[in-house]
Amino acid sequence: MSQSVISTTIQRMEHGSFRETQDVVAIEEPLEISVDGRSISITMRTPANDEELALGFLFSEGILRDRSQVAEVSQIDDNRVNIALAGSAGVDLARLDRHFYTSSSCGVCGKTSIQALEMAGCPLIPRDRPMVAYALVCGMPEKLRSRQMVFDRTGGLHGAGLFDASGNLIDLREDVGRHNAVDKLFGAAFRQGKLPLNDYVLMLSGRASFELVQKAVMAGIGVIVAVGAPSSLAIELAEQFAVTLIGFARGERFNVYSGAFRLNP
Amino acid sequence: MSQSVISTTIQRMEHGSFRETQDVVAIEEPLEISVDGRSISITMRTPANDEELALGFLFSEGILRDRSQVAEVSQIDDNRVNIALAGSAGVDLARLDRHFYTSSSCGVCGKTSIQALEMAGCPLIPRDRPMVAYALVCGMPEKLRSRQMVFDRTGGLHGAGLFDASGNLIDLREDVGRHNAVDKLFGAAFRQGKLPLNDYVLMLSGRASFELVQKAVMAGIGVIVAVGAPSSLAIELAEQFAVTLIGFARGERFNVYSGAFRLNP
Repeated sequence: MSQSVISTTIQRMEHGSFRETQDVVAIEEPLEISVDGRSISITMRTPANDEELALGFLFSEGILRDRSQVAEVSQIDDNRVNIALAGSAGVDLARLDRHFYTSSSCGVCGKTSIQALEMAGCPLIPRDRPMVAYALVCGMPEKLRSRQMVFDRTGGLHGAGLFDASGNLIDLREDVGRHNAVDKLFGAAFRQGKLPLNDYVLMLSGRASFELVQKAVMAGIGVIVAVGAPSSLAIELAEQFAVTLIGFARGERFNVYSGAFRLNP
Repeated sequence: MSQSVISTTIQRMEHGSFRETQDVVAIEEPLEISVDGRSISITMRTPANDEELALGFLFSEGILRDRSQVAEVSQIDDNRVNIALAGSAGVDLARLDRHFYTSSSCGVCGKTSIQALEMAGCPLIPRDRPMVAYALVCGMPEKLRSRQMVFDRTGGLHGAGLFDASGNLIDLREDVGRHNAVDKLFGAAFRQGKLPLNDYVLMLSGRASFELVQKAVMAGIGVIVAVGAPSSLAIELAEQFAVTLIGFARGERFNVYSGAFRLNP
């Protein structure tokens, strides 16, 4: 069985000072699902039970109905599963065309994805901007929450906020999908001609996945502050592009997973 | 500006008895994004700032670089946005082919999606199974959490659990993506020939989106218990298929958004 968590070295901020410690994060890696050798879907997932993931995905998309349709399920390598159909499967292969999905945030392995981003010509993110004081980071979650009125009322919306380096909340968007909240925030900046956002901090009300860090890199963001946990691949991508990645920002505490050099006492 | 929340009538369980009350839920609806009239992506989102969502999505996917490439952004109807490119945009249209995504859980409006599910021939879900006692529902979140060891260690994984009608946790899967956790759970049942799961309860460690209820309907699940909030479209789909949908299940309290007839004192 694959490993689903990994240990990583972090800087933990508590009551105004850092200490280095170990933290455990969930592994996020892409899985390519294919049917009879034909690529159907690439999903970012935590390794483990990959064959079940492939079967369950094809079942819930209405492609597979019954296990008699499946001749064999094979884990080709760490990030690839193939489903061989039984000769009599009667699967509507035309349906498969509707399900193909790929994007720049997907690849057959994390390395491929990160290389794809590099090749897409992302602007380099300056290492010395923005510099942010510890105390400002501690104040951001509460500022986001107090402005996130819809979240308070429904408990069902993710928030994405843009802060300047003085800790002022400049803009905020909400959505049931966390990637949509970030797209709305950066779409507003795009429209205003404000990109790249090299002098701003992106604040997330939930977890920090690879996809969200990828969007931040495209927008030139140097500092990401998340209320929740980051994934393994989110940390890897942040390190690669020298992005400061902060997780579990709650009150006087936060964890720095990457890029502590942008933080000041 | 579009409305992003909606009021709905629910049954609130507190300390062993129900009372009818109003709750506010986040609206979830599909948005189709097109470029020069060509459909690029359908995403489930909360209405509001749709034009920014379309611009931000195309920017973070590397399709748009600068606002000079955009001639006009138009909201065609409630669930459709089109981006007209400037003549000199220089957009790599070949890139667009890589980004097209559609699935049975998406449609140009929620009704279309629900009709598509009906047409996909989902087995009808029996209204009288499983019958579940209030107290069992109250006990499920803690049972899931105590078995969800990885979550405890990282804070970064979603859990999906299968309970029988006696409140026993039969199976559990975890993943950074909530849809993957559900796919893994149902994929295991598929492999074991246990589908449809008419006598089981699906428990979710987070929120209940349309996509997750859609997967549950495909698997014949009659009762869904979520720790977090449901979306508007999740409730609509649950009502359509007579699924019991419970949200905010925490300790002695939970909210019933649909199908209270499967719950017993």
